[in-house]
Amino acid sequence: MRYGIALERWLDLSTGINPCGWPVPALPAAAWSRLPDDEDELNEAARSYYDARAVLPVAGSQAAIQSLPRLRAPCQVGVLHPGYAEHAHAWRRAGHTVAPATAGELDNAVSRSDVLVLIHPNNPTGARFSPEQLLDWHAQLAARGGWLVVDEAFMDATPERSLAPYCDRHGLIVLRSLGKFFGLAGARVGFVLAEPTWLEQLRAQLGPWTVATPSRWVAVQALRDRAWQETARQRLEADGERLAALLRRHRLAPAGGCALFQWVCTPRAIAIHAYLARRGILTRLFKEPPSLRFGLPGTESDWIRLEAALADIDAHDLPGVCA
Amino acid sequence: MRYGIALERWLDLSTGINPCGWPVPALPAAAWSRLPDDEDELNEAARSYYDARAVLPVAGSQAAIQSLPRLRAPCQVGVLHPGYAEHAHAWRRAGHTVAPATAGELDNAVSRSDVLVLIHPNNPTGARFSPEQLLDWHAQLAARGGWLVVDEAFMDATPERSLAPYCDRHGLIVLRSLGKFFGLAGARVGFVLAEPTWLEQLRAQLGPWTVATPSRWVAVQALRDRAWQETARQRLEADGERLAALLRRHRLAPAGGCALFQWVCTPRAIAIHAYLARRGILTRLFKEPPSLRFGLPGTESDWIRLEAALADIDAHDLPGVCA
Repeated sequence: MRYGIALERWLDLSTGINPCGWPVPALPAAAWSRLPDDEDELNEAARSYYDARAVLPVAGSQAAIQSLPRLRAPCQVGVLHPGYAEHAHAWRRAGHTVAPATAGELDNAVSRSDVLVLIHPNNPTGARFSPEQLLDWHAQLAARGGWLVVDEAFMDATPERSLAPYCDRHGLIVLRSLGKFFGLAGARVGFVLAEPTWLEQLRAQLGPWTVATPSRWVAVQALRDRAWQETARQRLEADGERLAALLRRHRLAPAGGCALFQWVCTPRAIAIHAYLARRGILTRLFKEPPSLRFGLPGTESDWIRLEAALADIDAHDLPGVCA
Repeated sequence: MRYGIALERWLDLSTGINPCGWPVPALPAAAWSRLPDDEDELNEAARSYYDARAVLPVAGSQAAIQSLPRLRAPCQVGVLHPGYAEHAHAWRRAGHTVAPATAGELDNAVSRSDVLVLIHPNNPTGARFSPEQLLDWHAQLAARGGWLVVDEAFMDATPERSLAPYCDRHGLIVLRSLGKFFGLAGARVGFVLAEPTWLEQLRAQLGPWTVATPSRWVAVQALRDRAWQETARQRLEADGERLAALLRRHRLAPAGGCALFQWVCTPRAIAIHAYLARRGILTRLFKEPPSLRFGLPGTESDWIRLEAALADIDAHDLPGVCA
């Protein structure tokens, strides 16, 4: 219960998780009783899906975000800002010096950093960089023994932009996850793509059996389901455009986004967030800068519910932060 | 395939996992798509089942084994030996000085250690200690700012011997797991029971969302299923005695054990392990001292298969290591 609204009555647009995720079938019974097996088909399925030479399954990319900073002695870390805050938090926690950098400042940040951490496409701004630009930054960092860490949590809808095929290059580390595109956030399955020597160090630090056996089984099937993936990409692309158009029609033109979410910068962010919440629609509020992230509605009635609420906002004069 | 025998043909007695584990029903569909929620019913279900004031869910007790050593500056650590090797490994890896101690040496080890790590009942020896003895060791360690860490992975069949109700005492840390008694090794659900201040530090280090949502849901149901637990305890006690008697009948009298496994010390350990493996029966071999751990067969035909193989060993003269 929040705002007097029961959990199941909420339309949760706060997450960026595909609302029409991969449909999980019944599990083999042995999945619950057997210890996770590193020799199962998961690594092969992931290498093939990501087009990557070496992968390490982890319990969601969060597990990697948490652990990667422990693999380096304290150093200078540039982190894209605004962006998913857990990266900066984890590097600071491990004793590194973290300097936020906006997308426009990254070129300078590279020369001042030992490690550069990007979310690509960025969450929540949707900022994108060309592979050439990213590989150039990587080359500069790697020449000094540095790292480029690219969190590609929202990359699955545009696989042609992924750096996964380059992750055998020294000092390039790519994070992937089954949480967003596949809609399997509960399963806690992600991957680190990097040189085998770093993957071994990370694996030693995380220890054995970090991904549950049922989650591994589900991940193998989802990664191999090319037909579902193709359909999902087309649907998400269309739905992302539909969401952007809907927001524009209601004076909330997105400043950026990707297939799975749209990002709206507005001084009315706090007021709109509260207004939608009172109608049982949860969005993600960012205070710096004042902005909202809208995830995709899943069903047609969810779309209608969002549209009706946005129309009501038009009819009211919601205050901005300066009002 | 090992020994030319396909995976599904093996009788796996190597693990100590309950072969008749908690029967997992179909999952709610949302379990796969929703991020794990710290505010769900898991903590409450665990506090009630363990009779403990404060618990932290972790991705199997292995996650705690891996992380606890990072919460202390390098110190002297006594570890029960022989015993599950991951404890000593993790403390060494984090820079501590580890001294193995046999059960008989623990009294002395307490005075030389900042941290004492026990498996209770011990795996694989089955060694047991009285709660009074354990609490006395704890008091000695805690008076110096030390810790007693008790891994109770095999305690569920004898809950009256658990230290869980005392885990609000400063410096007492108890590890529990749903892997063995509940037979849910694939789910990766364990708990750390300790003072809230240590649990908070551990949680900060492990980060959010470490236990998968389907695993959390299954754990809540299993922890609350008192009827199943009572039946399982009775069955495991009877089966443990049956296994011990079976081994005794075949000149393999256990040197120790608990409901879920029996431990057989014999100079013929390597030969018997290989002999059983050629018949598709996997046991756990320890080289120091030469010994075998036998888990419980699950079905009546598994019992018959084990008995037939043991009878054949009698008929052969398997060599000891000195033969």
